[in-house]
Amino acid sequence: MSDKNFKSRLKELQIEVNHELEGYIKVLDVPEKKLQEAMKYSLMAGGKRLRPILMIATCLLFKENYDVCIPYFVAMEMVHNFSLIHDDLPAIDNDDFRHGKPTNHKAFGESTAILAGDALLNQAYITISNDLLMEKNMDMINLKIKAFNEFSKEVYQMMIGEFVDIECEGKDIDVELLKYMHKNKTGALIKESVRIGALLGEASLDELERLTHYAEKIGLAFQIKDDILSEIGDEKKMGKPVGNDREKNKVTFVTKYGLSESQRMLNNIINEANMEIEEFGDKGWFLKELALYIKNREC
Amino acid sequence: MSDKNFKSRLKELQIEVNHELEGYIKVLDVPEKKLQEAMKYSLMAGGKRLRPILMIATCLLFKENYDVCIPYFVAMEMVHNFSLIHDDLPAIDNDDFRHGKPTNHKAFGESTAILAGDALLNQAYITISNDLLMEKNMDMINLKIKAFNEFSKEVYQMMIGEFVDIECEGKDIDVELLKYMHKNKTGALIKESVRIGALLGEASLDELERLTHYAEKIGLAFQIKDDILSEIGDEKKMGKPVGNDREKNKVTFVTKYGLSESQRMLNNIINEANMEIEEFGDKGWFLKELALYIKNREC
Repeated sequence: MSDKNFKSRLKELQIEVNHELEGYIKVLDVPEKKLQEAMKYSLMAGGKRLRPILMIATCLLFKENYDVCIPYFVAMEMVHNFSLIHDDLPAIDNDDFRHGKPTNHKAFGESTAILAGDALLNQAYITISNDLLMEKNMDMINLKIKAFNEFSKEVYQMMIGEFVDIECEGKDIDVELLKYMHKNKTGALIKESVRIGALLGEASLDELERLTHYAEKIGLAFQIKDDILSEIGDEKKMGKPVGNDREKNKVTFVTKYGLSESQRMLNNIINEANMEIEEFGDKGWFLKELALYIKNREC
Repeated sequence: MSDKNFKSRLKELQIEVNHELEGYIKVLDVPEKKLQEAMKYSLMAGGKRLRPILMIATCLLFKENYDVCIPYFVAMEMVHNFSLIHDDLPAIDNDDFRHGKPTNHKAFGESTAILAGDALLNQAYITISNDLLMEKNMDMINLKIKAFNEFSKEVYQMMIGEFVDIECEGKDIDVELLKYMHKNKTGALIKESVRIGALLGEASLDELERLTHYAEKIGLAFQIKDDILSEIGDEKKMGKPVGNDREKNKVTFVTKYGLSESQRMLNNIINEANMEIEEFGDKGWFLKELALYIKNREC
């Protein structure tokens, strides 16, 4: 398949994901309207929708459509955006811009941003529990409970990654701790998005394992690319300032290995990730293109 | 049953609840040890364990033991403590003391407190999902999914209450909004604790409804008593400063109705709550005593 096919399919899926998210986040005319607006502001601020699209693409390896995944990628994107809102807070990263717009606390104030983050995290679980409540098929209930269980644990891993990140700021940490941090902070939800797509797609254990390896690798690649973009990215395309990491004395793959070695590592990891997809034949084209997209993205 | 019996049974249950909580919150020697310590600090800081004990007492109306409830009261207490940590933050209530000890952000710093709160909220759902994963009985799975669903929605109601509380600070709100706020902020989890005890105890729909009315009433009573204590309580017994509400220009039942009318309302509501328990005969003694305890507590 061509790169053009990939880009139009990616765009199509992003629109479909946004449409689903819109349906799950309502702003009602109630005393807490502003809280709902703050939740919606971040959830609908854009973003690549990488995690939902990974879940969808994985599910479509096994099923004709991805309907079964919808509540789970909605929950995933809610949690992802919760984490961005809280990470941006003055007491944590103190960032003013995200996706080219003021961060949540800049737009709504700090107390609302804290609560909007809390509420998005919780809304993810409301979404999952609503879906579980409606499911009547016993086998699917068991799979969905497994997905819920893994999801909740990987959200905790993400929080651990964020915590280690904060604790390490300004310290010269070793590569092992850097990888541990990223495996959790960025890797956990990326991995779990793929795993839920596979679980709800009723993949075999062998297929699940292969896809988990793929996901772990692109999760690491995503972070290396992030570090590269933080160093040499285009501020306009990224919608946030470049060079922040260095200013904050953050240890990154770039500060640790240099630019060209980081780029070489990135290339290798993406190749390794795509080896795991070989077994799925033609059906795997989109997941492979997604890996290349992570490598080549400009924001 | 005598007041002395009640107090010793209450103490006994508090010890049992604390013992269960200890088992669910481990501090491991990992890079994120401090995060776990911060979570444990608030979860084990004391408190009356009112929500777990309400759940247990309700469940025991129907079952010989309360084992089935354990993960759910643990989750409830985790969420309750998450909400206290975030409410106390500088950007929200900016409180320095809780249960006679420094608040979480005073003890661990603001970024850790935000994350410890997030992690406790999320840990509640890990706890529920672990329990669901182990449950093999189909009827119980369905009841537990129902409990999970209600729980997640009432947690959101609690957040709404907190949000309305923040938005109303310093404004002269009417009694309807004051009640709406408290019904959500304090009432939601109290009601849901009783409902989960009844659901997992396999109460009939009629019994569930009766107990829900009881819970709604003691939830409101709890808040009226809180407002009274905030005005005339003993700082030493409460472990936090008295008169804060008035200083912050908060509208409370006391500022709205005065002390003696608030006390009269409190007495009436407790009487009404206990009327709902009549139907359970002798078995209801502990829930009735709990309602009186809420009315008469000094902290």
